[in-house]
Amino acid sequence: MTNYNCARIIFATLALFCSSALLAQEKPTKLELMPMPAKIEFQSGKFSLTDSFKIAITGNPNQRLYSGATRALRRLAGRTGLFFPQDFLRPDVVVDSPALTINCERPGQVKFGEDESYTLTIAPAQILLAAKTDLGALRGLETFLQLLAVDEQGYYFPSVKIEDAPRFAWRGLMIDASRHFMPVDVVKRNLDAMAAVKLNVLHWHLSDDQGFRVESKAWPKLHELGSDGFYYTQAQIREVIAYAAERGIRVMPEFDVPGHATSWVAAYPELGSAPGPYQIERKWGIFYPVLNPTKEFTYQFLDKFFGEMAVLFSDPYFHIGGDEIEHADYHEAKHWNESAEIQAFKKKHNLADNAAVQAHFNQRMLKILTKHGKIMVGWDEILHKSMPTNIIIQSWRGRESMVQAAQQGYQSLLANGYYIDLIQPTDFHYLNDPLPADLPLTGEQKKKILGGETTMWAEYVSPETVDSRIWPRTAAIAERFWSPQNVNDVDDMYRRLEVISFQLEEHGLTHEKNYAMMLRRLTRNQDITPLKNFVDVIEPVKIYNRGRLRPHTSYSPLTRVVDAARPDAAAARKFRRNVDDYLEKRQQNHTSAEQINFSLGLWRNNHAALLPVIKASPVLAEIESPSKDLSEISGIGLEALTFLEQNQTAAASWKDEKLEALSRAKEPRGQTELMVVSAIEKLVVAASEKR
Amino acid sequence: MTNYNCARIIFATLALFCSSALLAQEKPTKLELMPMPAKIEFQSGKFSLTDSFKIAITGNPNQRLYSGATRALRRLAGRTGLFFPQDFLRPDVVVDSPALTINCERPGQVKFGEDESYTLTIAPAQILLAAKTDLGALRGLETFLQLLAVDEQGYYFPSVKIEDAPRFAWRGLMIDASRHFMPVDVVKRNLDAMAAVKLNVLHWHLSDDQGFRVESKAWPKLHELGSDGFYYTQAQIREVIAYAAERGIRVMPEFDVPGHATSWVAAYPELGSAPGPYQIERKWGIFYPVLNPTKEFTYQFLDKFFGEMAVLFSDPYFHIGGDEIEHADYHEAKHWNESAEIQAFKKKHNLADNAAVQAHFNQRMLKILTKHGKIMVGWDEILHKSMPTNIIIQSWRGRESMVQAAQQGYQSLLANGYYIDLIQPTDFHYLNDPLPADLPLTGEQKKKILGGETTMWAEYVSPETVDSRIWPRTAAIAERFWSPQNVNDVDDMYRRLEVISFQLEEHGLTHEKNYAMMLRRLTRNQDITPLKNFVDVIEPVKIYNRGRLRPHTSYSPLTRVVDAARPDAAAARKFRRNVDDYLEKRQQNHTSAEQINFSLGLWRNNHAALLPVIKASPVLAEIESPSKDLSEISGIGLEALTFLEQNQTAAASWKDEKLEALSRAKEPRGQTELMVVSAIEKLVVAASEKR
Repeated sequence: MTNYNCARIIFATLALFCSSALLAQEKPTKLELMPMPAKIEFQSGKFSLTDSFKIAITGNPNQRLYSGATRALRRLAGRTGLFFPQDFLRPDVVVDSPALTINCERPGQVKFGEDESYTLTIAPAQILLAAKTDLGALRGLETFLQLLAVDEQGYYFPSVKIEDAPRFAWRGLMIDASRHFMPVDVVKRNLDAMAAVKLNVLHWHLSDDQGFRVESKAWPKLHELGSDGFYYTQAQIREVIAYAAERGIRVMPEFDVPGHATSWVAAYPELGSAPGPYQIERKWGIFYPVLNPTKEFTYQFLDKFFGEMAVLFSDPYFHIGGDEIEHADYHEAKHWNESAEIQAFKKKHNLADNAAVQAHFNQRMLKILTKHGKIMVGWDEILHKSMPTNIIIQSWRGRESMVQAAQQGYQSLLANGYYIDLIQPTDFHYLNDPLPADLPLTGEQKKKILGGETTMWAEYVSPETVDSRIWPRTAAIAERFWSPQNVNDVDDMYRRLEVISFQLEEHGLTHEKNYAMMLRRLTRNQDITPLKNFVDVIEPVKIYNRGRLRPHTSYSPLTRVVDAARPDAAAARKFRRNVDDYLEKRQQNHTSAEQINFSLGLWRNNHAALLPVIKASPVLAEIESPSKDLSEISGIGLEALTFLEQNQTAAASWKDEKLEALSRAKEPRGQTELMVVSAIEKLVVAASEKR
Repeated sequence: MTNYNCARIIFATLALFCSSALLAQEKPTKLELMPMPAKIEFQSGKFSLTDSFKIAITGNPNQRLYSGATRALRRLAGRTGLFFPQDFLRPDVVVDSPALTINCERPGQVKFGEDESYTLTIAPAQILLAAKTDLGALRGLETFLQLLAVDEQGYYFPSVKIEDAPRFAWRGLMIDASRHFMPVDVVKRNLDAMAAVKLNVLHWHLSDDQGFRVESKAWPKLHELGSDGFYYTQAQIREVIAYAAERGIRVMPEFDVPGHATSWVAAYPELGSAPGPYQIERKWGIFYPVLNPTKEFTYQFLDKFFGEMAVLFSDPYFHIGGDEIEHADYHEAKHWNESAEIQAFKKKHNLADNAAVQAHFNQRMLKILTKHGKIMVGWDEILHKSMPTNIIIQSWRGRESMVQAAQQGYQSLLANGYYIDLIQPTDFHYLNDPLPADLPLTGEQKKKILGGETTMWAEYVSPETVDSRIWPRTAAIAERFWSPQNVNDVDDMYRRLEVISFQLEEHGLTHEKNYAMMLRRLTRNQDITPLKNFVDVIEPVKIYNRGRLRPHTSYSPLTRVVDAARPDAAAARKFRRNVDDYLEKRQQNHTSAEQINFSLGLWRNNHAALLPVIKASPVLAEIESPSKDLSEISGIGLEALTFLEQNQTAAASWKDEKLEALSRAKEPRGQTELMVVSAIEKLVVAASEKR
């Protein structure tokens, strides 16, 4: 904690001061860094990259830094095509006249609160990356790689001095590998991408109603009967943890108890609160199976299991889930309520309600985890007046519960607002600050907010699509966790995000390349252009509407148009922005009008091109109607634009008719929605206003 | 052997008889099967696919078939977006009214010569897939999936009766994981693709001068000092073997001895024939380090090591390499020739030459492998008059050596002609029959030819590009190994290959999707269209020219234009075909003229669009000159086309001048070559011929 808070105070000084610094320079450099460093000073000149570039490591480094620097060198070669002379950086090889010197004071530890600060100084003749720990140096190498630029002379790095350290020490991505299993390569490429944007915790959600995903030697039926054969072997778990550690990323496992437990009781029905037998759940939702808190067997079982996992997962933090045993609005703890045994237990132990029963269970969990050297982490619901404050609360239900936890003395993590499975736009997540200035917390209480995590729940993602839900939005969230609070210019975030998203492909991420691939499959290898024009401006429906509109199971295909469609559709977002720009200052803004005209023309004509493709591929039948709508409303938009450009006012009857058509186009189909309707509505309304 | 030869006799009856069968049908179906089955009979009608589709398994199946059928069901759902009712096929679940019934007489064994035949009968009301073994059923499921078609009513399967069995029992893909390490996910996705085209052997080249890629507990320095940290753990090897076995694919390891041994002696210099010390080789080529055949330690070492690997790799076939100790034309066995100890040993044992020394070594290898229950396989050079005929010869140097081996009583495999690293066109490999009718072999000798393997040597491929070298060409080679000899219509192969290549993306292969990704990186995320137009018609230089033109090391970047460029560039091939069609029958062929005109116009104008992209991305500088050439020669082609279309004859001086320009355009640059020059030359020559 000390390092991190110290760093926060020292470096919380940015205020986009780079933009003013830019003015002082002769040739302003538009930096494409994400997360934005705490402090950047521009110098004059540049370091020109040539094929003689070499890296030396000095100080007191470890093997991780040698490997990390070698990887950075390969990535630089990969981007530039330059044949660098160095093969592998090694302690036993002396490097003559290095271009980049990395100095590291001591080997870091991959643990919460480790120093991740670094200073990067790029001068025309040499580059120095200095860090307390190798972890700081790895973070600095990512910044270094993001600085690679091009001018008429070739590749270069701008002369800068960067001082950087994270705002929050806990910067996580949660991957749900239970609802859809995510093979090791999926996890690894996401770890690489996490490292690229300086995230440092993989929270691995490993059990849920739909699957138990870790091999247990203590209780082998867990993976044998609870997984359909899709689970990580212990060797694979170790492989992933080592891979993460090489990148300075901690791995925190989550085994969800006592609820979300169908896969546990499918394997060991004797753990359940109802008689069973149970089967792995295939549907999505919240289900009744819940561990039995009254049986000693339950605790013996978990003691043995957590003991096994405590050794396998070396990080001291251990997440026990704890969510959704019951929910005031729509879900009761049925198996507890209906069990005479549990009711008697409640009475005997004077437990007022099910929350108290869960707290009783959690006290036992805490004892077990403490015995195994672990710090207990859980979702909101583990917070209870009877629980000590040495547990960590992860807030998913809302910021209020995080605030309450901090006020009561609990450390906490924010997940609420970072649910990337809900298909919300990047700026929504980006502007969700874990610790806004106006929170009703004392300085001491604020220190209890350790950071945040973005959560990739996996009901509607497969290994093929998961990257497109995580990235690029998670890069913007990573900036929220790392960069100073006042780095919050949404336009600049989107400008940088486009570049960073492209760079992330370097790690094998499929968020970009699987798009065309999925469209090829959907068209049966016809020309994808018209389908792409359409899918570019739709998004999957938001929040929990997908399942409401069409019930899915764990084996439903995730290859439809809704799966190819991506969150925060860039083409639609840019169009909406153009319309706003145009309407706000339309006299000066011919570019916006031209771009709007171009987009609407493209879409108006698109249905004619797409229709034969739809007819030749039955899986596309569900978009025939919205594709037709897109053409129609684009025609409406063009009419509105003509009124506006000719400075004429449309009749009220025209407006009413067109708004009704637009309103129909808002209807979700195929669990997707057109993301340009609201902007066209604005054009229609503006066209019919007196000017 | 029996099953396979029997099958060969029964089913070697096709002669593209499907095309004549098609004529008998009312609505001819253009099948897109690869490999083409041995026998197809068309029936009337079709089976309509709906979301009530279910699969049942009968007979005497094993778990592998349940898993395989479940995967097939998921793939069908993935392609069609249909929500099928079945989750996992399981022995304990009775399926009511299945649409597809799979009957399997007995569990197959993943071993050489196992029965892989199947019969697939699709009728309007139901589908029956019958096989002797589950392996045959898995092969049949791939054919079934390739038959999925579409008409106005939706998805369907045409009514057919297919009887099928392989021509050769050994149908392999060799992956070199030594020169560039190929992580587990690369191997797995290629195993899926292999299964899709009915290949059944993964030959895994695991050691070479540039890296030793398997964890050895017996001799841990092999992977510790011989791999730069890039090796498969034994757990990963087991994981891959199990994954392959699930798909009916054998895994044969190759540990190359006594040559290609730098990584061995880098770890254990005492194995070497020269004093050492040694370092892992970073360059490409043939190197001197070779194991010492005179020391008992060498044999003790290999006994222990092969003993360990014999357990790890369950297949009885074990490849010991054995290639390139010396080569008559350009390489001597220097370390043997210069070692007094080895010279004395030669004398003492009356060994005439180094080939005899190697044979002496190989006799020891054979003893060791036999002791560990393995059948010895090696490259051409292990053939020696002193060796018994119970070893398998893999012919890489030419068909002649395979023929000689067969004549001398050795079983053999053909690799020559299937070296896909040499960037030759698909039809070259496709028409390379392992066993042409005119071979000077008796019937008994012909039976010695077990099959063939395509070889993916990895000097110039990385995990990012390897799929684009293996696929789709290997699908055509797979047809050569599986289908009857007289399935050899190149045009029809290319027609089907385009569809199959697209379908192979289903397995996560990157041969298609990494193309655009690499172009994005090369352009630094500019519009890739002009670069794509250019790279679409270039190919990497062929055979071993890449390294001759620019020396590479094992850490040179493989991200340049030459790496994005693909073998057998389809756009160029189609253009050449159009030109041939046009020139052969140009009066009737206006379509060809139009297509030629379109292509040439596109390319002529492309340089102007590509030049600013090149200027903004230094890695593209090396294509400025060939891009300019493409525009110029396309202009020449358009001139020639005008002469031809206007029925005018160009002057000889014009021809000479243009041919000289074309000749200059043939010069490789950036280790790539323009693949449309020869066709434009033909146009120029034709334009200047008297008509």
